[in-house]
Amino acid sequence: MSRNLAQKLIAAHLVSGEMVPGKEIALRIDQTLTQDATGTLVMLELEALDLGRAQTEVSVQYVDHNLLQADSRNAEDHAFLRSACQRFGLWYSKPGNGVSHPTHMQRFGRPGATMVGSDSHTPAAGSLAMLAIGLGGIEVAMAIAGKPVYLRMPEIWGIRLTGEMPPWVSAKDVILDMLRRHGVKGGVNRIIEYHGPGLAGLSAMDRHVIANMGAELGATSTVFPSDEQVRSFLRSEGRAGDFVELRADDGATYDVTDDIDLSTLVPLIALPTSPGNVVAVSDVAGRAVDQVVIGSSANPGLRDFAVAAAIVAGRQTHPRVSFDVNPSSRQILQDMTRMGATFDLIAAGARLHQSGCLGCIGMGQAPANGRNSLRTMPRNFPGRSGTREDSVYLCSPETAAAAALTGRITDPRDLPALLGIDYPTVELPTESSVNTAMLEAPPAATADRVELVKGANISSLPEFDPLPDRIEAPVALKVGDDVSTDEILPAGARVLPFRSNIPLLADFTFSQIDETYPSRAKKDKDGGGHIVVAGANYGQGSSREHAAITPRFLGLRAVLAVSFARIHWQNLANFGVLALEFDDADDYGHIDQGDVLVLEGLRHGIESGTSVTVRNATRDEKYETHHRLSPRQVAMVTAGGLIPWQRS
Amino acid sequence: MSRNLAQKLIAAHLVSGEMVPGKEIALRIDQTLTQDATGTLVMLELEALDLGRAQTEVSVQYVDHNLLQADSRNAEDHAFLRSACQRFGLWYSKPGNGVSHPTHMQRFGRPGATMVGSDSHTPAAGSLAMLAIGLGGIEVAMAIAGKPVYLRMPEIWGIRLTGEMPPWVSAKDVILDMLRRHGVKGGVNRIIEYHGPGLAGLSAMDRHVIANMGAELGATSTVFPSDEQVRSFLRSEGRAGDFVELRADDGATYDVTDDIDLSTLVPLIALPTSPGNVVAVSDVAGRAVDQVVIGSSANPGLRDFAVAAAIVAGRQTHPRVSFDVNPSSRQILQDMTRMGATFDLIAAGARLHQSGCLGCIGMGQAPANGRNSLRTMPRNFPGRSGTREDSVYLCSPETAAAAALTGRITDPRDLPALLGIDYPTVELPTESSVNTAMLEAPPAATADRVELVKGANISSLPEFDPLPDRIEAPVALKVGDDVSTDEILPAGARVLPFRSNIPLLADFTFSQIDETYPSRAKKDKDGGGHIVVAGANYGQGSSREHAAITPRFLGLRAVLAVSFARIHWQNLANFGVLALEFDDADDYGHIDQGDVLVLEGLRHGIESGTSVTVRNATRDEKYETHHRLSPRQVAMVTAGGLIPWQRS
Repeated sequence: MSRNLAQKLIAAHLVSGEMVPGKEIALRIDQTLTQDATGTLVMLELEALDLGRAQTEVSVQYVDHNLLQADSRNAEDHAFLRSACQRFGLWYSKPGNGVSHPTHMQRFGRPGATMVGSDSHTPAAGSLAMLAIGLGGIEVAMAIAGKPVYLRMPEIWGIRLTGEMPPWVSAKDVILDMLRRHGVKGGVNRIIEYHGPGLAGLSAMDRHVIANMGAELGATSTVFPSDEQVRSFLRSEGRAGDFVELRADDGATYDVTDDIDLSTLVPLIALPTSPGNVVAVSDVAGRAVDQVVIGSSANPGLRDFAVAAAIVAGRQTHPRVSFDVNPSSRQILQDMTRMGATFDLIAAGARLHQSGCLGCIGMGQAPANGRNSLRTMPRNFPGRSGTREDSVYLCSPETAAAAALTGRITDPRDLPALLGIDYPTVELPTESSVNTAMLEAPPAATADRVELVKGANISSLPEFDPLPDRIEAPVALKVGDDVSTDEILPAGARVLPFRSNIPLLADFTFSQIDETYPSRAKKDKDGGGHIVVAGANYGQGSSREHAAITPRFLGLRAVLAVSFARIHWQNLANFGVLALEFDDADDYGHIDQGDVLVLEGLRHGIESGTSVTVRNATRDEKYETHHRLSPRQVAMVTAGGLIPWQRS
Repeated sequence: MSRNLAQKLIAAHLVSGEMVPGKEIALRIDQTLTQDATGTLVMLELEALDLGRAQTEVSVQYVDHNLLQADSRNAEDHAFLRSACQRFGLWYSKPGNGVSHPTHMQRFGRPGATMVGSDSHTPAAGSLAMLAIGLGGIEVAMAIAGKPVYLRMPEIWGIRLTGEMPPWVSAKDVILDMLRRHGVKGGVNRIIEYHGPGLAGLSAMDRHVIANMGAELGATSTVFPSDEQVRSFLRSEGRAGDFVELRADDGATYDVTDDIDLSTLVPLIALPTSPGNVVAVSDVAGRAVDQVVIGSSANPGLRDFAVAAAIVAGRQTHPRVSFDVNPSSRQILQDMTRMGATFDLIAAGARLHQSGCLGCIGMGQAPANGRNSLRTMPRNFPGRSGTREDSVYLCSPETAAAAALTGRITDPRDLPALLGIDYPTVELPTESSVNTAMLEAPPAATADRVELVKGANISSLPEFDPLPDRIEAPVALKVGDDVSTDEILPAGARVLPFRSNIPLLADFTFSQIDETYPSRAKKDKDGGGHIVVAGANYGQGSSREHAAITPRFLGLRAVLAVSFARIHWQNLANFGVLALEFDDADDYGHIDQGDVLVLEGLRHGIESGTSVTVRNATRDEKYETHHRLSPRQVAMVTAGGLIPWQRS
């Protein structure tokens, strides 16, 4: 039977289950990736689970999210993570070594491997024909310990690429076009597989851009074949030996199909405040810009910086504009420096920052309220930048560089006429400045047990009780569609330092939406708890399991939603919160914040079927809902979450 | 009559007064420097004073302190400062352009000019034979408006340099030697004038290092002659035309004298938690180091980065060490990049940060509690790093680079034997990468009145009432010797964003010493206010006038101290707080926190004489004290400070 590439990758790692869309499957995991914002919890979970040393081929803990070090907590998190890597047998990527996704691709990615990561952009590794999936931290902890990962078999969505991108259009415009066509829910429960002759013109790092932001489509993952572009990438990284060719079988089919003719693309831009608000740059040209930021895992490649450098070289950025450059890794910064791009950027007025995620996760670089900021980043959810009334646009490096020069949103295709700038041809070195010195290898398996270095801000995980058989609880919060994990539990400079301290962190829960939520929730915390009601695509965005843990810590027992984003749905289950979807989406409109809801006979009910009746005691109404938990997940939720279930 | 250089500079700018140590003199000011941490207030003061456009030869507003941009406040401060520069006729140095002191020296410094700055390290400009003095912001505002600056004529302290520095010893060791000999009060009420044959081996930027940290000696300023080294510096900056030779007359004498034979110096290091705790590096070699930071106004020169780069080139920093590199200006980063030093630093494991003050002012780079951090910065007062229990050492770039490689405090003279590293010869370019594009010139004098762009966090200055004739108030706080302005009103990432908002900022007053102070002070704020009792050298360190304004806002009426640091003493007067010194320092020991003190007949008393009797109502004791205010300052203090006095 002919298989597409995604099916081949799954089949090669299938531990149990049937490869039928919607059925639960279990996969063997070769590699894991964690970053510091989620990783401190993963390490605490590894400690709580007590499953021993990493059993994967390679597991890497990156430090890229929280680099501001505004007080001692941050440096102490780093010391903790380093000690945990030595204790549990992970690689440790030091602060300043770079953003996890490009760094992992350059140093560890290999065609054919599976990977899970406690970061929603983990699928970026699909650029190298890996099957890479973002999950909540605790599932990554299980994978590190050698356990299979469970998920529902997704549909495979084949996107056939033809043609060649015109000048001033680059990989970012391909994924923005996907978002324009399909929106932020377009990829839910799908793996996107790109194929076709158009691939030949996309480098491995271009594919990283596209695979990375598959997360913004809600996709489970994105895969590209392993072909000459991948061979050439691995060779430039000094890892030619890791190359294997991998592609769909001839005659393979897809569950869903679509086509893009790359030659028809134009420069695109996502307007505030969703990656799905995509329009042509020319439609919004002329708007004043105060800040331009290049970098992040969504445009991490040397080419992305080099093309921006070539555009601004010998010119000066607009006086009003702060032009921030965030190298995505130390290795890429070395390459940029060696080829002169660093010099050109600085000379043109760039603020060159340390390698890391920085403003992408709201760690610095917050714009002024209401002033436009153009970024090559993947997300522009409200407030994610650190500014409450932010106005963040997402675009390609070409579009970003054009705005840096003119101080206005500018279609880069107008640069030849406006400023006499021809589309630059960027010559990249055939060999990267491979640099592994900031990647610390784990000690040999026989190393002595290493003590975890826990600073004052690193608290153990709270213990959660089992799901009660009856919930009678108020709706503490009702929210609309597309609420992101950034809105449930923000990142940013104010909040990230508390990532390892759930009791303190909990006070920031839903602070973007309703600052009174934590205090109201606490009232019922030790009684019957509370319920949240949400619209569609609840919990999109970052994989942070904190967005499940802190509401749970505050007494959240169940979320009733029109629909859920995949990772957050799993995180809720992992921490014992019951996620229910309305059978009739209209019932969402019948419930008000403050209503008291009653759910009865729950434990037996969710074991024996998927239906759950919710009674609104305030309005004397009933709503039919259902859960989508597998029997394994039902056992986990009734036990109070993965840790108590695993321990029992 | 033969004059030394300091006397010549003063004489050339004397508006009134007698050049007799201790007498008040008034000086004409040619240039001013403000930075963002103090500058937002200076701009609000210019607005409140309504004195029109800048009347100086050049006034520059730098943005170097607060670059983290953790939320919208920071970007909005920048927009405010830029609009204020256009309104009041100042140059605006954009965020990322660099630290004020080296940037000013490179672009604007000229031998023979006077300068005041709202930054305690303003005297760094003495490297170019300028007379440069750090003051509270409001005095800088007056200077910008063309008013003379008043100060007491300092003693001139001649330091004769002979000999040549041995390998592995550099300018930082010269000023650390001064601190070892004389301590943090050694330079109080003095201008330090370096002279002698040893100068020939010190470049203008080396002299910057020494002049900069004259602030740590408590000196009013530091001056160096303008000689061949200065000529060569100005030529390399494309400003040969600004050179004039300036030096002490033959036969000039000094009020105080000292000598240093440079050939006898060894690598030195200041231990936590004072720049005065200086010992030989060899005395503390072997202590584990977690962080090494190079940069700041105390080691800002291209040489300082280049020598560190040459030491680490081709090697890797220790796995435990975070090696942070803070380029001091964009121009210097361009030069570093052009000459390959940037590449060598990155390749060796450095985290390369944007140009600015950063960790020097606690804006990021906070170390872990109790872990050793070696920095080429000027200050290590407790908590200044952003970490409460910090352990910060101050040293040369050579000593810093050695620790980055070994992970331990290491005498750099041991590097040849330890690692086979010879003392590098650093070849600097004869022409700098002059770059003025991030320096925005003020509009022509005829430009239209520009509206100030005030974000939500920029509040107007509070109004202060006149000094009452009778104070009966409790001692809300009693502190010891050498309390720095960092302890009175911290900087750092938590506090700096509120620099333009006194009511919010006030809640951080004395938070390093006693977090209950603001709430206790507020109790009496609208009654009789309160008093602070302090030991010697009260208010050393940063020039921030916020350290006078926020206690005043909380009701501070008088400070009784054994002695005061100069700038803070002036700031207290400028905001209407009465600064009194004990006639008998032993009386300090007789007062306890909580005692109620009574000062009567104050207004007439301080006008007619310098003595003030303080009655301790709690203990029924009396203490004799005195003020050091000039008649001008008495009028100002009784009016409630400079602004009400100026307006009246």
